[in-house]
Amino acid sequence: MTADLNANSVPPATPGAVGHIRLTSHSGGSDALPIRWGAPTAAERGPVVGTTSRRAHRNVIGTHSGSYSVYRALAVAAGALSREHRADLTDTAPTDVVGPYPQWSEPGAIVSLDPWGAMTAEAFGTELAAGHDIRPTIAITKAHVVVPEIADAIANGRLHPDGRYLLPSGAASVTKAAIEPVWHLPSVAQRFGCTEAELRRVLFEETGGMYPELVTRSDLEVFLPPIGGQTVYIFGSAGDLADPEVELTARVHDECNGSDVFGSDICTCRPYLTHAIEECIRGAQRGGVGLVAYSRKEGRALGEVTKFLVYNARKRQVGGDTADQYFARTECVAGVQDMRFQELMPDVLHWLGVRKIHRLVSMSNMKYDAITGSGIEVGERVNIPEYLVPEDAQVEIDAKMAAGYFTPGPVPDAAELGKAKGRGLDG
Amino acid sequence: MTADLNANSVPPATPGAVGHIRLTSHSGGSDALPIRWGAPTAAERGPVVGTTSRRAHRNVIGTHSGSYSVYRALAVAAGALSREHRADLTDTAPTDVVGPYPQWSEPGAIVSLDPWGAMTAEAFGTELAAGHDIRPTIAITKAHVVVPEIADAIANGRLHPDGRYLLPSGAASVTKAAIEPVWHLPSVAQRFGCTEAELRRVLFEETGGMYPELVTRSDLEVFLPPIGGQTVYIFGSAGDLADPEVELTARVHDECNGSDVFGSDICTCRPYLTHAIEECIRGAQRGGVGLVAYSRKEGRALGEVTKFLVYNARKRQVGGDTADQYFARTECVAGVQDMRFQELMPDVLHWLGVRKIHRLVSMSNMKYDAITGSGIEVGERVNIPEYLVPEDAQVEIDAKMAAGYFTPGPVPDAAELGKAKGRGLDG
Repeated sequence: MTADLNANSVPPATPGAVGHIRLTSHSGGSDALPIRWGAPTAAERGPVVGTTSRRAHRNVIGTHSGSYSVYRALAVAAGALSREHRADLTDTAPTDVVGPYPQWSEPGAIVSLDPWGAMTAEAFGTELAAGHDIRPTIAITKAHVVVPEIADAIANGRLHPDGRYLLPSGAASVTKAAIEPVWHLPSVAQRFGCTEAELRRVLFEETGGMYPELVTRSDLEVFLPPIGGQTVYIFGSAGDLADPEVELTARVHDECNGSDVFGSDICTCRPYLTHAIEECIRGAQRGGVGLVAYSRKEGRALGEVTKFLVYNARKRQVGGDTADQYFARTECVAGVQDMRFQELMPDVLHWLGVRKIHRLVSMSNMKYDAITGSGIEVGERVNIPEYLVPEDAQVEIDAKMAAGYFTPGPVPDAAELGKAKGRGLDG
Repeated sequence: MTADLNANSVPPATPGAVGHIRLTSHSGGSDALPIRWGAPTAAERGPVVGTTSRRAHRNVIGTHSGSYSVYRALAVAAGALSREHRADLTDTAPTDVVGPYPQWSEPGAIVSLDPWGAMTAEAFGTELAAGHDIRPTIAITKAHVVVPEIADAIANGRLHPDGRYLLPSGAASVTKAAIEPVWHLPSVAQRFGCTEAELRRVLFEETGGMYPELVTRSDLEVFLPPIGGQTVYIFGSAGDLADPEVELTARVHDECNGSDVFGSDICTCRPYLTHAIEECIRGAQRGGVGLVAYSRKEGRALGEVTKFLVYNARKRQVGGDTADQYFARTECVAGVQDMRFQELMPDVLHWLGVRKIHRLVSMSNMKYDAITGSGIEVGERVNIPEYLVPEDAQVEIDAKMAAGYFTPGPVPDAAELGKAKGRGLDG
């Protein structure tokens, strides 16, 4: 197969044919509904159809559930799941209304998620009735979250239960939403300053050949990539997020399993996250609203194997674990310092209708630049309090401040950055 | 494209050609090293080569870093990463030796990870010197983990710092390893009781057409799927895991971001995990060794959108959130009760040389059956203490006990299972 592969020379797959492997490359048919990305109403936009059971209805590359489509396939292989299963969505509708907001149809404001993804039943009732397998790519529910650091904040008198946002049990009452990635390829390319053809080509080639449709089906503009999505936690009323008059405290947090779950002391991820939750609760109690957007981008989206390799290199290098070599060690192993690409991150804020963040709980200049660059106003920037920085994480904090991360205090100088503040591997 | 697609009618891609999109479907060449899965030595087994820069050297389907290959592609699209970047692995070698163990070459013992994945430099030095881009799929490092629940256990006198496994600061000293999935397709098919051709076909079709090589390249038997991997945390000496005389306390834990990170009270995931960490530390202090294996299988590998949809359906159904409808609600939405497939889970234990788990910190019969079925002896099973079960999570625990999960106490009867113990959505 090369780029010269001629679509017309290949017969279309027969949907439902038994005994033939059905590939989607050239099976787009008249039964597929069009997607007009960024259209102002759901009816004009049309549904995202990533079903695997009715090939002729598909109007995207890839399928639902991100990476978990691989497990879905295992379920079919094991005989546990029928290929024809259609989700029974009774009682699953969102607990809270989000949008529609003007940003949903502002050109280029949202390129990596489907703003209509939570309201499939109401927005696409006609198409569902006509037999299209339209699945939510967003789900919204309620939860009580119990975080030990919040219990500590209560015990230390920093937080006080109010019975609404923070319960006497110590649990915080939240609305939360899970969001799967839905990429509009022409708009994603625009964000990264390359052509759509270049984006499609590298997505195909650099993944070792995932989804040939990326290069053979330019008519399919929407891609459901097999990557992790996001979760947002809202402290207070979801509707208030879109009101710039209501004080919004927000953190956009990138996954770090080693710290977020296991509390590794080499970084500030969990301390920063729980600090943000504390700030969000306090903000809601003041009459504001709080937001934590959590993205599945482990180890700066390099994955955990690369992250651990870098840890070893940092701890073993001549001179010890110093801030001035912090980014260099990642770049040696991974070729870049960071792969998180905050360019796509503000989409979730636009989905929620956010116009202004009064208090951004983050020191990252990359996040700040991406948010303000997308047209959202940022008031105050809230850094992590000194007492929450683990000793071994001082290397990271120093390196980040020197690289342009926000700090209200002094930026460490060269002498400071050259000090081995990190523990060795035998510590 | 259909199954009739004739490989011979398609010209092979020219490796390194400029201006042509290079697909891997038929580019396997004489430069690719063979993989003999399960061979007793690294030299006989041969390296796993998933590079995207030297196509002719590839001997697998897919590429490294699981899902994060998509971000790698974005980095190239954005002009931030050179396609030719080769990782500089100086100082990244494992901090601890794991294996080789006899299980590494026992037929069918390990099918979903590369046991030689951490020791690429020493095992494949010749091939590296010859220019093959061989990357680690496993990385091993040291860490100090600070878990608030462990601090509580110290404060409550349940745990005592010893200065070695549990430090006076409250941090636990661990060895940890990150592991990317590496699937040997013929062996994975065997685990699931289907033919290799069936497995390849559904992996391709049910993902919406990911990696045509799955069906066109039967000569490539190894697949690097774009899914999350695993992380293992070892409390005590890694080498002791393989000694059945040393008491092993172990938990195999499946990711649940809502509880593991945010402490949602609808399930027991984080409480069970921190309980296991406490048991592991205590076990190490007794002269044993502890192990937590953490798998990225969010929401029973259904993903978080499906999970939140199910939460809403449970909370809204007539009769309220009851244990007797717990599994039914998941099945309505997802078509199955569970997609985690514990069949692959024991691989990581065999990589670590485990022969006997003295104390398995889990109530899951699926995990127990998979572990014992793979030839590992299990002594005691340790359930979660009653005081750690959040009120809203009683529905889950009741449902699981009724379905066959281990419990040393009484199994709830029909009347008990019909009680609405879960909170509503307005709670």
